[in-house]
Amino acid sequence: TSVRSAECAFRNKDIVVKKCQRYTQIWLNTQTRLKNVLNPQVIQEIVTALNSAKYDDSNLVMFSSIGNVFCSGVDLNYLTTGDPKIAARKMVDSLRFLVKTFITFPKPIVAVVTGAAVGLGMAILPLCDITYASDKALFYLPYSTLSQTPEGCSSFTLPQVLGLAMGSELLFCGRKVTALEAHQLGLVSQVFWPTSMMQEVIPRVQQMALFSGKALETTKLLIRCHNRTKLELTNETECNLLLERWPTAECQRAILAYLDDEKNFIY
Amino acid sequence: TSVRSAECAFRNKDIVVKKCQRYTQIWLNTQTRLKNVLNPQVIQEIVTALNSAKYDDSNLVMFSSIGNVFCSGVDLNYLTTGDPKIAARKMVDSLRFLVKTFITFPKPIVAVVTGAAVGLGMAILPLCDITYASDKALFYLPYSTLSQTPEGCSSFTLPQVLGLAMGSELLFCGRKVTALEAHQLGLVSQVFWPTSMMQEVIPRVQQMALFSGKALETTKLLIRCHNRTKLELTNETECNLLLERWPTAECQRAILAYLDDEKNFIY
Amino acid sequence: TSVRSAECAFRNKDIVVKKCQRYTQIWLNTQTRLKNVLNPQVIQEIVTALNSAKYDDSNLVMFSSIGNVFCSGVDLNYLTTGDPKIAARKMVDSLRFLVKTFITFPKPIVAVVTGAAVGLGMAILPLCDITYASDKALFYLPYSTLSQTPEGCSSFTLPQVLGLAMGSELLFCGRKVTALEAHQLGLVSQVFWPTSMMQEVIPRVQQMALFSGKALETTKLLIRCHNRTKLELTNETECNLLLERWPTAECQRAILAYLDDEKNFIY
Repeated sequence: TSVRSAECAFRNKDIVVKKCQRYTQIWLNTQTRLKNVLNPQVIQEIVTALNSAKYDDSNLVMFSSIGNVFCSGVDLNYLTTGDPKIAARKMVDSLRFLVKTFITFPKPIVAVVTGAAVGLGMAILPLCDITYASDKALFYLPYSTLSQTPEGCSSFTLPQVLGLAMGSELLFCGRKVTALEAHQLGLVSQVFWPTSMMQEVIPRVQQMALFSGKALETTKLLIRCHNRTKLELTNETECNLLLERWPTAECQRAILAYLDDEKNFIY
Repeated sequence: TSVRSAECAFRNKDIVVKKCQRYTQIWLNTQTRLKNVLNPQVIQEIVTALNSAKYDDSNLVMFSSIGNVFCSGVDLNYLTTGDPKIAARKMVDSLRFLVKTFITFPKPIVAVVTGAAVGLGMAILPLCDITYASDKALFYLPYSTLSQTPEGCSSFTLPQVLGLAMGSELLFCGRKVTALEAHQLGLVSQVFWPTSMMQEVIPRVQQMALFSGKALETTKLLIRCHNRTKLELTNETECNLLLERWPTAECQRAILAYLDDEKNFIY
Repeated sequence: TSVRSAECAFRNKDIVVKKCQRYTQIWLNTQTRLKNVLNPQVIQEIVTALNSAKYDDSNLVMFSSIGNVFCSGVDLNYLTTGDPKIAARKMVDSLRFLVKTFITFPKPIVAVVTGAAVGLGMAILPLCDITYASDKALFYLPYSTLSQTPEGCSSFTLPQVLGLAMGSELLFCGRKVTALEAHQLGLVSQVFWPTSMMQEVIPRVQQMALFSGKALETTKLLIRCHNRTKLELTNETECNLLLERWPTAECQRAILAYLDDEKNFIY
């Protein structure tokens, strides 16, 4: 069921794009050691797929992943390979571009979280419109352990979505949140049983794609206009801070220690 | 217990107004086929009753309904009768006026939701201050099915109240929410057993009406001042979009199909 | 375990300050009839302790209380002693100063709520970053009973945190909220069993204090920058209103009646 789209101008290495009737599916499926990380190459593919869906007859985009990890966040190996300053610069440019693309995307995005959503993989969710999650999904931000500051506008969106007390605990302490908690807190629209998730979610997405594209797009604009400037500003500020922070000795040490610890990759 | 108010300068056809000690009750009770809809005539009566309560010695207003439907939202029959452009113009003018009256009303409004709150009937709730709901109340926005865009500032208030993930699912997909869910999500202050609801709610409202009117009014001003401009702007934008959208062939077709479908009126 | 800090330049009467490794503990422990109230003397001690923690090597502050009351709020006896206008002026100056200090404090504050958090004792929590609460904690704002308007930015923060429907019920009606409800609503990050609370909370605070101080401070700045101006403005407005309201005959009568009623002091 996951054929590459004929509309796609270039071959994707790390994502699968499927153009369906009146909507587009984007599946993260990276060829990296750590499953479904985001680095400049992967991000370029996602942005190209979104731009394609922006101008074709898609009424919405479904964003999901293949495998049992939704998204492991920023590619930490990338940040510690070669000159840390050059790596940070490239990663930050790419991150800024990805987040800006999500902020300004005019059609509804339905995120379907099949497993762990870590760091940027969690931060991206409030930039989507509807989030469906598998009962086994897990959500957390390991920013303090990595000695880094927030990314993906999470410093603005997570306290807003989860409340300040909970949002702060996630941002400061890396607290892990289950799918059920995420639903109760308002990050997730609905929780599904892992084995039957796609059979339930796909028909909903198909149904939603039948609604008036004009009405969906206008509704999204109405919902999003209030925070758009704030989100763009937050993205800029977070990116500038990460550009300074990622290459520091303190942060590089923390990233290497994190990558060395096997238990960070058992979800 | 529902005598018409002596203070009322004109006779109400579609609402019942009762001036009680230090507060005013407004009960929706329309003589329409679809129970408790909002059209220019009903809205004029509500606004007049609110203006009366604004200047008399009422410390607050209780807003509820007679019958098992709290409010069915905008009168869809009205929108499809006669010239659609003229009907839309009149309905939009009236809607803008109602929402503005709620936004600027200086005294606390306690909404008591006895049954289904559909479309504008749900959208009006975050413009009230306290919302008590019967356990059998049901909340949803059939905007996508009607091919229309949001109304009553719901594009701003619902994502803010319910969280973006849930608010978007209501606005985009028309998801139905029970009283208990609405309470957990923060739309409803408290849920009551249908049969004893009024016996519990009325004493609370009476108790609240005994507090200092000056303190209540100042507190409401403090709470509301942060979003007032944003609400007024959202109301304007939503109304302008509906003025264009309601008369379109796509929307008129969707409204007629909605009115033809019996299951839309079983709550 | 509660030795007075050697760094502290002056002896505290109503609080206990303990400088630990990389963080500071502040414990409310007032010598007043009503336990853990806030008056100009107590507030001065808290602000001095916070300023000390701001410039030493503390990465964060833990704010808690000794005894079974977290904080009874503003010292109502103070407001009704001597000339009400002079008392109100002194109390308001002090309140403005305390709230401003919390709003602008650059390092994370972890509030540990051991018992009842009443009025300002509850209002201060959304100005902290993480709130841990004992299962027996209770939260409410007796503002309507006292015929007074909100304080501590609660007119802005509580509707934001709890949702408008619930926030309004607390502010208008003095509704009491349990620790579990406060957690579900997003005011409290986590609830602990009273007897083992400190054994669980202290290690977490110690763990958090080991993270990069620079990253913690930058993260707090990112989270807080969006509302800082709004909070400062709200503080000013609320203080100006209380300066007028506290000395009124209506409010003085309500305060005395409140102090006379034994049941207001059984939590």
